[in-house]
Amino acid sequence: MMGRIVYVNNEYVPENEAKISIFDRGFLFADAVYEVTAVLGGKLVDFSGHMSRLYRSLQELSMKMFLNEEKLLAIHRELIKKNNLYDGAIYIQVSRGSADRDFLFPTDNPLTQSCILFTQKKDFRSVKPGISIVSEPDIRWSRRDIKTVQLLASSLAKVKAKQAGKDDAWLVAENGQVTEGTSSNVYIVTQDGTIVTRNLSNSILAGITRGSILRLAAENNLKIEERPFTIAEAQQAKEAFSTSATTFVQPVIEIDGVAISGGQPGPQTRRLTEIYIEESERTAL
Amino acid sequence: MMGRIVYVNNEYVPENEAKISIFDRGFLFADAVYEVTAVLGGKLVDFSGHMSRLYRSLQELSMKMFLNEEKLLAIHRELIKKNNLYDGAIYIQVSRGSADRDFLFPTDNPLTQSCILFTQKKDFRSVKPGISIVSEPDIRWSRRDIKTVQLLASSLAKVKAKQAGKDDAWLVAENGQVTEGTSSNVYIVTQDGTIVTRNLSNSILAGITRGSILRLAAENNLKIEERPFTIAEAQQAKEAFSTSATTFVQPVIEIDGVAISGGQPGPQTRRLTEIYIEESERTAL
Repeated sequence: MMGRIVYVNNEYVPENEAKISIFDRGFLFADAVYEVTAVLGGKLVDFSGHMSRLYRSLQELSMKMFLNEEKLLAIHRELIKKNNLYDGAIYIQVSRGSADRDFLFPTDNPLTQSCILFTQKKDFRSVKPGISIVSEPDIRWSRRDIKTVQLLASSLAKVKAKQAGKDDAWLVAENGQVTEGTSSNVYIVTQDGTIVTRNLSNSILAGITRGSILRLAAENNLKIEERPFTIAEAQQAKEAFSTSATTFVQPVIEIDGVAISGGQPGPQTRRLTEIYIEESERTAL
Repeated sequence: MMGRIVYVNNEYVPENEAKISIFDRGFLFADAVYEVTAVLGGKLVDFSGHMSRLYRSLQELSMKMFLNEEKLLAIHRELIKKNNLYDGAIYIQVSRGSADRDFLFPTDNPLTQSCILFTQKKDFRSVKPGISIVSEPDIRWSRRDIKTVQLLASSLAKVKAKQAGKDDAWLVAENGQVTEGTSSNVYIVTQDGTIVTRNLSNSILAGITRGSILRLAAENNLKIEERPFTIAEAQQAKEAFSTSATTFVQPVIEIDGVAISGGQPGPQTRRLTEIYIEESERTAL
């Protein structure tokens, strides 16, 4: 790794000294939630959206948060400064805290939560080539609207894609409908130019970038339909792409061996990329 | 906690100094598996079964294990000694190792795995009162045959049971069939005296205690049926119980408000408890 300064429970420490207890429930039970916020030119993209979702994830798991948004902003900014981060991302994870191992966690007298943050450098500026996708069964738990660290299924699906010589996987429910990418929301553009992405429910994460993209698309008079679609429909689409905090708008040019938009990022995808980066640079804080 | 000596990556340390990197994939991705082995009178129960399942879980996740069974036995025994453990359990967790956060893990050049073990005291000797159960939807991922630390759903279900004034939850699939308890296999005894427990598949963990109980039941000429059952069938059963490494045979006397076997541990359940403890004391090592 790279000699970063990271945040662990109220202290800024070198990354190789950044440790948590083996009794942390994040480690023993995956009893933890997280967010990843992009940093563009040293400023935070959609920060408020990410923090609202963090509080919402915590609430769904009956965890109160001991740091308010203002304090979290200060920590994020301090990490940007200490690590001279220009383009990249900040990861925050909050877990329920440490206790002797027990499926039951105390509800009346909560544990002392643990909170860690670290930075990662990313390149958002170079033009993105499109990526190739394979479909994989979605075997994750049912509450994907909560951003927990139960990420093993997604990780395995991504590795499987890589081993097949492809870039990422799209996850498909038992009924044949696509849910998400391994760490992204997914979209197609139909032959009549409509942007289609799955409607929100417990089956997918309410992507912060997804929310921004749909808002910007509407402001730019693009047609949007929020509904599920299948791999077969995606293979017949005009364009396909995914969005996430750290990939922004990611063109998809191949799905299960079938080329999309002639194997090139499509024009609507490229336009959304530009609109999103422009807006992010304007509103980042 | 209790001043235990625990094992962390080849060192024996006081529990309050037992730490792992925040970049451990067990912490960031729940990319880790575990086992819990009972200790009865200072000896390990079904040790070989637990270690075989540990290796099997690791293999399913494309992880090789750097410690062989002999070495693992030595560590388990050392912890029993260092902590003067008489009745209790030893928890072992192996995670893929530490790396900068990435859904992709290296497959050609594996990370250095982390391995932690700790002890817990338990009381196996006092007569168990029966427990009360509520049913909860089973929202876990689909590969429950792999013993990963993705335990949040089970933990939440157990807390929900407790909040309803009950002892534990039985998890029910969408089709109405019971899968497991929050950390146990579950059984009913039908009116004609047949022990019924769900057949093995990806939907449930192949309990080590389950394996022993079914073997002992067969040796004692008890009738066994491995098939799914519903909550309604369980409520009409003669007896009900669950098994796990740390509860052995646990009588169940109430399911969703309906008393089972007159609200008392049933005779067949009590008999299996005795047979299992006797066998465990005989074969523990």
